[in-house]
Amino acid sequence: MRDFLPEDVRRRAYVLDVVTDVYERYGFEPLETPAVENIETLLGKYGDEGNRLIFKILKRGEHEQTGQADLALRYDLTVPLARVVAEYRGTLPKFFKRYQIQPVWRADRPARGRFREFYQCDVDAIGSTSPVVEVEVCAAVSDVLERLGFGDFTIRLNHREVLRGLLDGAGVPETLHDTALVAIDKLDKIGASGVVEELVARGVGPGAARQALEAFTATGDASNEAVLARLSTQIGSHASATDGLHTLRAILQLSQATSAGPLLRLDPSLARGLSYYTGAIFEVAVDGIGSLGGGGRYDNLVGMFSSGSVPACGFSLGLERILVVMSERGMFPASVTRSSADVLATVWNADALTDTLALARLLRAAGLRVEVYPDADKIGKQMKYASSRGVRFATIVGDDEQAAGTVMVKDLTTGGQTPVPRGEVAAWLSRRLQSQSA
Amino acid sequence: MRDFLPEDVRRRAYVLDVVTDVYERYGFEPLETPAVENIETLLGKYGDEGNRLIFKILKRGEHEQTGQADLALRYDLTVPLARVVAEYRGTLPKFFKRYQIQPVWRADRPARGRFREFYQCDVDAIGSTSPVVEVEVCAAVSDVLERLGFGDFTIRLNHREVLRGLLDGAGVPETLHDTALVAIDKLDKIGASGVVEELVARGVGPGAARQALEAFTATGDASNEAVLARLSTQIGSHASATDGLHTLRAILQLSQATSAGPLLRLDPSLARGLSYYTGAIFEVAVDGIGSLGGGGRYDNLVGMFSSGSVPACGFSLGLERILVVMSERGMFPASVTRSSADVLATVWNADALTDTLALARLLRAAGLRVEVYPDADKIGKQMKYASSRGVRFATIVGDDEQAAGTVMVKDLTTGGQTPVPRGEVAAWLSRRLQSQSA
Repeated sequence: MRDFLPEDVRRRAYVLDVVTDVYERYGFEPLETPAVENIETLLGKYGDEGNRLIFKILKRGEHEQTGQADLALRYDLTVPLARVVAEYRGTLPKFFKRYQIQPVWRADRPARGRFREFYQCDVDAIGSTSPVVEVEVCAAVSDVLERLGFGDFTIRLNHREVLRGLLDGAGVPETLHDTALVAIDKLDKIGASGVVEELVARGVGPGAARQALEAFTATGDASNEAVLARLSTQIGSHASATDGLHTLRAILQLSQATSAGPLLRLDPSLARGLSYYTGAIFEVAVDGIGSLGGGGRYDNLVGMFSSGSVPACGFSLGLERILVVMSERGMFPASVTRSSADVLATVWNADALTDTLALARLLRAAGLRVEVYPDADKIGKQMKYASSRGVRFATIVGDDEQAAGTVMVKDLTTGGQTPVPRGEVAAWLSRRLQSQSA
Repeated sequence: MRDFLPEDVRRRAYVLDVVTDVYERYGFEPLETPAVENIETLLGKYGDEGNRLIFKILKRGEHEQTGQADLALRYDLTVPLARVVAEYRGTLPKFFKRYQIQPVWRADRPARGRFREFYQCDVDAIGSTSPVVEVEVCAAVSDVLERLGFGDFTIRLNHREVLRGLLDGAGVPETLHDTALVAIDKLDKIGASGVVEELVARGVGPGAARQALEAFTATGDASNEAVLARLSTQIGSHASATDGLHTLRAILQLSQATSAGPLLRLDPSLARGLSYYTGAIFEVAVDGIGSLGGGGRYDNLVGMFSSGSVPACGFSLGLERILVVMSERGMFPASVTRSSADVLATVWNADALTDTLALARLLRAAGLRVEVYPDADKIGKQMKYASSRGVRFATIVGDDEQAAGTVMVKDLTTGGQTPVPRGEVAAWLSRRLQSQSA
């Protein structure tokens, strides 16, 4: 887990501001849940591997001795959302569109862009089965990435029922569908032969495994229309898969009116690891980088916390990968790496400390970011400090300035000094700083 | 631990925006640390009670069986800061002024305004022993509370070395100073006789206990000058206490140039529970409400993570108490409880879904917050939904509007409908929403 020093925090804040602004434009509202959930809320929602990666918290008091865990750290933002929807059912609107930007924790082996504590930026729409929901979450994610400057991404699209139809067609028994999807989800990582091996290891016959893989294998540059046609043939009259294909067609058609339209790529090999998906699934990937996030429809998850099923669909963007790529590619605007302060207020001598604080107060009241040098060190040393901190202006009030009612302002980028009447110095500095940032 | 529904998040964001803005004006920079620290980093820093209240995380893998904990949830923001300062010593500026706004976790019994997960808003200045630092953190906190609308608060001020001088004077042996200060810290909660009892229970003789309490007892409405004079007499020639008193005098004098000046109240009974304070200590309290936060100087804490001592001083504001009081007193501006969206885009019929999405895209590109109704329900039902959500405008594009190239805009506050040319509708809506919020 990592510390974020000031420059890191500023970069993160820049990205999160864009995410928040876009999500709000889509009518999503903010939700926050506790870092800690009851352990039963999380167990059994993410598959076996997920269960193992949950950080568990010891029960307090005398129970600490027994090693019993009753709480756990949030593993994703979707399960807490489902719990919230079940818990506040009467309070929430019919269509609850929420965004949530918070850290989650997984006891995973750290790797490039993968950390044990990482932020997810989720949008989810609760309460509707309309494919408009899928289209809107994909469009919101597209807008975010475009605003951040990504140009080379696609959103892979598939449907869990289509996957099941293909598995049926390949002769994989229904009881093995879930485990087979976990294997197929690893295609990018372990390749085609690896997936066949893993399918066999998970109990699928070798013939069915090979046939399943063939059915899923990515279709290269085939158009969405061509993939739809091929899938339609493969699926035949399989009822739920046909419904799934119908939904995919609607998503592709409706998305044409949104920013997601040109980015959606039908990909039968997309499986998504998590077990709670029930319908459309998506994953956003950047060329040569891999996934930046994913999501899908999960109409049964809320029902695990209350009676009655509640339709739901969402998309989760991973902040950390986005930041890694943006840093490598130099995608941050210069304004993000700004200095700690606009002005350093220097201290002429020990007797001038009170006056320095008064001047700082005046400048801060005008919205300026002012650092007060804490000691009456030599002015040269104070200026050196200002330079090292990247502060643009320093103020000096010596005996002459005090007598004249002025402030000497030093511009550290030019070295020039200008005496400014004390009553005008805040406005004088604000003007120059604004023209700099413009 | 609590969920924050959209309105809660907006209130929290309002307060945190003010806090961040003020802290940045003082030249503090943002820092974030992980929720989880190594357990050794936290143990032994907060006293015995603190140790008990730390949430401990089970070691992963086969160790889960043994009940061994190797990690723990962040208990405050000061100890992680000290670890960061020790760890990044070469990278950080000479004076590191950081703010940090993150949750902390304590396995405490929940009470009014006290939760197991709660946010702290900390400012700390590292690297200087100057009393300017104390003055600046107190002024920053004063500015925050004033900007939020608090008028009736004071900042109690004391000094650990003055406290030790008074304990020496009362005949409390030095080995019992730390435990005595924990008892004295409870004066507000358990009263004078309770403190004497607790002092005796902690090993202080009854005579010394009574004498100590008398020395500390609050001085009512006495002026800071009067309290200084009284303390000076009580302390006599005690060397470190005299130094402490000198610092208190400097803080009070310098603060006159800042917003903290009229708010600082010298209070010999202020002890602060945490064991790491070494110099000035403060606590901000609102009449009839109690503490909203506190802080002080802790020159030895960084040294617990690295060789050599590093001076440090800070102030921590508790977000949750502030929110409780602001809610009770109705201190939030109306703009905080805004609706989820500016516009509901209604759907005329199933064929119009694509067109609705295109219109929403147009409006969102202009910065409007737009919710798309996901189904082709009856328009009356869609309008009812818009009203229930507090959305001000709804757009309708029926067959007539489609033919005329217009959008019918319904103002849900007046019930009036206006046809607007499609190319102008974004600007039309923006103007009206701006004049509303102005």
